[in-house]
Amino acid sequence: MNLADFSEHFVVRLPHTDAAGVLFYARLFEIEQELFERWLELGGFSVRAMLDGELAPTPIVHCGADYRRPVRVGDRLTVRLVGLDIGRSGYLMQWNFLIDGEVAMTARVKRVAIDPELGESIDLPEVFRTFLEETQSRTGRLS
Amino acid sequence: MNLADFSEHFVVRLPHTDAAGVLFYARLFEIEQELFERWLELGGFSVRAMLDGELAPTPIVHCGADYRRPVRVGDRLTVRLVGLDIGRSGYLMQWNFLIDGEVAMTARVKRVAIDPELGESIDLPEVFRTFLEETQSRTGRLS
Amino acid sequence: MNLADFSEHFVVRLPHTDAAGVLFYARLFEIEQELFERWLELGGFSVRAMLDGELAPTPIVHCGADYRRPVRVGDRLTVRLVGLDIGRSGYLMQWNFLIDGEVAMTARVKRVAIDPELGESIDLPEVFRTFLEETQSRTGRLS
Amino acid sequence: MNLADFSEHFVVRLPHTDAAGVLFYARLFEIEQELFERWLELGGFSVRAMLDGELAPTPIVHCGADYRRPVRVGDRLTVRLVGLDIGRSGYLMQWNFLIDGEVAMTARVKRVAIDPELGESIDLPEVFRTFLEETQSRTGRLS
Repeated sequence: MNLADFSEHFVVRLPHTDAAGVLFYARLFEIEQELFERWLELGGFSVRAMLDGELAPTPIVHCGADYRRPVRVGDRLTVRLVGLDIGRSGYLMQWNFLIDGEVAMTARVKRVAIDPELGESIDLPEVFRTFLEETQSRTGRLS
Repeated sequence: MNLADFSEHFVVRLPHTDAAGVLFYARLFEIEQELFERWLELGGFSVRAMLDGELAPTPIVHCGADYRRPVRVGDRLTVRLVGLDIGRSGYLMQWNFLIDGEVAMTARVKRVAIDPELGESIDLPEVFRTFLEETQSRTGRLS
Repeated sequence: MNLADFSEHFVVRLPHTDAAGVLFYARLFEIEQELFERWLELGGFSVRAMLDGELAPTPIVHCGADYRRPVRVGDRLTVRLVGLDIGRSGYLMQWNFLIDGEVAMTARVKRVAIDPELGESIDLPEVFRTFLEETQSRTGRLS
Repeated sequence: MNLADFSEHFVVRLPHTDAAGVLFYARLFEIEQELFERWLELGGFSVRAMLDGELAPTPIVHCGADYRRPVRVGDRLTVRLVGLDIGRSGYLMQWNFLIDGEVAMTARVKRVAIDPELGESIDLPEVFRTFLEETQSRTGRLS
C-alpha cells in the first residue's frame, strides 16, 4: 500500500466473479478487509494483535457499497482510501475502486472498538486514534 | 422459504465465520443472495432464467448491512423479508436476521433491471413487477 | 439430511459460480463443510461443541475432489455420503454429487482428532467413533 | 511472482480463516487460483483471454491438498511452484506453502484444455505447451 495516499493496485481474479461474468457483490468486502489489514500494518498494527489481546478489536457494525459499472476478471483496479469519520469509539472508512480513472465501486465500513470480554464499545485506544487522525489528515474527512 | 411471510431458517456454518469467532461480515451477502434466489423461485423466476435471457437480469447497484450482535457458528437464525421499495427499474429489499426473536443483523440490497446487451437500466418486466408488488403487500413498504 | 442414507438435496447458487459460468472449484469444499456439519448434528454433535471444548476437534489434514461435468447455477444436486474409512485418530469421508442420477463431482475429506492444547493427534473419542461406525455400516467402507 | 522460480509471498487475512482460528481449508484453492492467474500472466496468458475465446480454457478436473500445520491470520507464507506433470490435454501443478522454511500446506490442481463449444478435451495449444514445458524445466517434474 502506498504510504503517501493509501492507494493500492488490485487485479480481479476468477474467485471474485460469478456466472453473470462480473464481480459478485459480496467479494468487494473481502477485498476491503484485505485493504484494511494492509492499512493497519502501515501503522504498525495488525488483526493478529487484536485477536491476541494486544489491541482492542474493532468489529464491523455497518457496511455499504455502490456498484456503478460492471467489474470483470482481469480488470486492474486502483483503490484509494477517500477519507474517514472518527468518533469516540467508532471509525468509518471509505474506499473508492477505480478503473481507468473512473469510480467503478465504493465501499464504506464502520468499525467500533470493543472490550472483547464485555462486548461493549470503548474509547478508541489513543495510539490507534493518532494513526486514524494521521490517515484522515492525508486523505479526507467523511461526513 | 415460507410462502406466507417469506421467512426462512438458517444455521451459521464454519465457512461463514472468521478467526474472531464470529460471522465474517461479507458472508451476510452470500446468504442474502441464497435468500433472494429462493424468493425468486417462489414467484416462478430464477437466476438461471436471467442468465439465459428469458428474464431481464437485475444486478446489484447498492447494498448495506448492520451488525448488532455477534453471530457464531451453530447459531440458528430466522430470516424475514421486512419489505420492499419498488421503483421504475429498481427494487430494494430488506432482510432481518433474528436470533431468539432479536434482530442480530439487517441487510438491504438494491437491484436494477438492465438490458444485458446495452448495459442500461430498463423498466421492470411487468410479470416481475407484479410479483414484487404481491411480495410488498405481504411484507411491507420500505422508505 | 436423510437419516437412512445420509443424502441431501442442494441447489447451486450464484455465489458458488464464477465467470466461466460454472461452480468455482473451491466452493465444493464449502458445501462439503455444510454437509459435514449436518451429518454431525444427526449424531448429536456439532462444530460449536468442538470449539467449546466439549468434543475433540477434528481439523482437516487432506482433501481431494474430482469434477466430471460442469455444474451451473440452478442445478439441483443430490449429495450422497458414499462411505468412510475409520482409523485410530482420523476418518475419511467421501461425498458424491449427482445431477440427474449421474456423478458430477466427488469430494474426499480426511479429518483427524486432536488435543487442541497440544495440537497432537489423539484417539477418536469413543462416542464419536460409535457414530462413525454406525454411519459406515449404513453407507460403505472406503479403501 | 518471481520469474526465476515462480515463488510468491502471501499474507493470510481474516477472510481466509474460520472460528477455529485457522485457515479454512477451502480457501487454499482460492489462493491457488490467484497464484495460477499470476503464473499465466508471466507467460503472456490470462483467464480473460480464455473466457474471450482467444485461448482454450482449462477447467479443473481434480484437486487435492494436504494441511500439515495450522495457518493463522497474519502468517506470512512463501509459495513455491514445485513442479508440473504435462499430458496431451491436461497438466497438473503442485504448489507448496511454507512458513519459516517448513511446508505448512501443499496443493495439487489438474486442469484440462477443452473446446468450450463441444465441452471435450483437446490437445494443449502449442504456445501454451511451450510455456508449460519452460515452467517445468525451471521447477520440476511431478510423477
